[in-house]
Amino acid sequence: MSDKIAVGIDLGGTAVKIGLVDASCEVLAQTSIPTNAQRPYEQVIADMGRTAAALLEENGYIVADCLGVGVGSPGIIDSENGIVLYSNNIEWDHVPLADVLKQYLPVPVFVQNDANCATLGEVLKGAGKGYQNAVFLTLGTGVGGGIVLNGRIFEGGHTGGAELGHIKCGSERRRCTCGRYDCLEAYASATALIDDAKKMARQHPDSILWELCGHDLEAMNAKIPFDAAEAGDRCGKTLVENYIGYLADGIADLANIFRPDVIVLGGGVCAQGEKLTDPLNQYLQENCFGNTVTYIPRVVIAENGNLAGLIGAAGLVYQHSSASE
Amino acid sequence: MSDKIAVGIDLGGTAVKIGLVDASCEVLAQTSIPTNAQRPYEQVIADMGRTAAALLEENGYIVADCLGVGVGSPGIIDSENGIVLYSNNIEWDHVPLADVLKQYLPVPVFVQNDANCATLGEVLKGAGKGYQNAVFLTLGTGVGGGIVLNGRIFEGGHTGGAELGHIKCGSERRRCTCGRYDCLEAYASATALIDDAKKMARQHPDSILWELCGHDLEAMNAKIPFDAAEAGDRCGKTLVENYIGYLADGIADLANIFRPDVIVLGGGVCAQGEKLTDPLNQYLQENCFGNTVTYIPRVVIAENGNLAGLIGAAGLVYQHSSASE
Repeated sequence: MSDKIAVGIDLGGTAVKIGLVDASCEVLAQTSIPTNAQRPYEQVIADMGRTAAALLEENGYIVADCLGVGVGSPGIIDSENGIVLYSNNIEWDHVPLADVLKQYLPVPVFVQNDANCATLGEVLKGAGKGYQNAVFLTLGTGVGGGIVLNGRIFEGGHTGGAELGHIKCGSERRRCTCGRYDCLEAYASATALIDDAKKMARQHPDSILWELCGHDLEAMNAKIPFDAAEAGDRCGKTLVENYIGYLADGIADLANIFRPDVIVLGGGVCAQGEKLTDPLNQYLQENCFGNTVTYIPRVVIAENGNLAGLIGAAGLVYQHSSASE
Repeated sequence: MSDKIAVGIDLGGTAVKIGLVDASCEVLAQTSIPTNAQRPYEQVIADMGRTAAALLEENGYIVADCLGVGVGSPGIIDSENGIVLYSNNIEWDHVPLADVLKQYLPVPVFVQNDANCATLGEVLKGAGKGYQNAVFLTLGTGVGGGIVLNGRIFEGGHTGGAELGHIKCGSERRRCTCGRYDCLEAYASATALIDDAKKMARQHPDSILWELCGHDLEAMNAKIPFDAAEAGDRCGKTLVENYIGYLADGIADLANIFRPDVIVLGGGVCAQGEKLTDPLNQYLQENCFGNTVTYIPRVVIAENGNLAGLIGAAGLVYQHSSASE
């Protein structure tokens, strides 16, 4: 067992990260290839499989040493059959990822949504380590979500669950990418914060926001509003307050529903660290249901960074492997 | 096993319902006593225990025939230790319900939140029968919630989970009973609908709402807005549309999080039947995340009525008993 290894793959819109991960979730070796997602999916998966096989070989492993491959993919996944049902990000529609990948690496293949993998990664090795129940939110282009209950990914009773970015949040009738109005994603994604910052800058030509983005709104990013707030700019403060307010509402909902041990934040915005977690933790203390008699989960920042998905994907392999022993 | 019986108890603010429930969840006998909740809790529990013991005896059972007692209680429950941590409804604070009850009926005692019990009741025998994953909302004085995952009650990683009435909903800064603003309960409870109807009537002296409540706003109930809408009254239509809109938002959130087999509605408002479920199901079809490729749960009306809590409470006993066999 100690010589066995798992392959973790994080399939992204621009790059595919591939790593060898041991049973204690250490990444022993890793590489990355461009996705070139516009190609036929067979080519993308062939590259993925061949690169993983080469990585195993380069590191002295043969196929028989490989317990399996875990793949974290964007989109809606049929995890039972290893099919990417739909991904807006890489424009895949009912792609039999597991079956095709097995042609290049004849081992068990497990496919899960990438945010679910990242959640598992943080529980196995990261900010949620040692906890049995965790909720994860990625604050990036969208708002992804993942749930770990009793140490295992909970993906819903049916495919399409754990979509934590798609719960009701604000009331400005913002159209979400999913088609519904006013989802958390439309307020708490990095994209939403950037859009809000651009709008705010246009309305306030005197704001320091302009200076911080080099007088080019196309250079606006999710860090700038926080920097502006720290510099005392009123526009920046309003942006940050609103952003954290929306996020706090979503997080309090998840606390009241799941009462997890911990709520982990990942994605680009989480670089703000305690500027984000301090007010969120305070809001939970004051607003969780039954806050005087119940456990209040702590909000923490993810620790695995860009490797969270890869580690969690490999974690799928070890979980299946230990369950079937 | 076939001769064994479970006692199910539904502890309410005004009455305690006590029943003998067999392994197929049929209620063989039942009785009800007033709660008189203002008394010391020892007296309330003593009455509960003595009445349950008498009911067993009257029906030809001895204590050894009783597999256990399940109690559904309002409030925040420490189910592991059988303690009612806090209940606003019966004004209990850290009451060791299981320990005291065992003094009168020396059998295993299981305590759960009443909405959790009602959810289990609907899955064991009711609108969720045969399903492994169900979400339940009671639309009554408040909005209670329950979650069954893989056939078992999910109460959160820690006490204080599954509080589905306490997720963000509207944006009118309505103060919720829990202290937070704009919870689902503040918009989708029968109480909220009645308050909205009274306000609407005051603003529209010509509305049929007045006639339907006998020109006495204190007689307003949750049925009247639906009746007014059916009679073509514009105020009634607006009230019903708004109410269903809020409820639909909450239900879509729960669908996107849990993707259960079914979402069951209980409580007084669910007497409206298809007037409620038809538009809610339509909203889910159109607004669930990934609605073209994923499973859309159906919204249905609870079937166990006033017995749901009692049946589910007894179900706790059978679940524990089968788990420990």
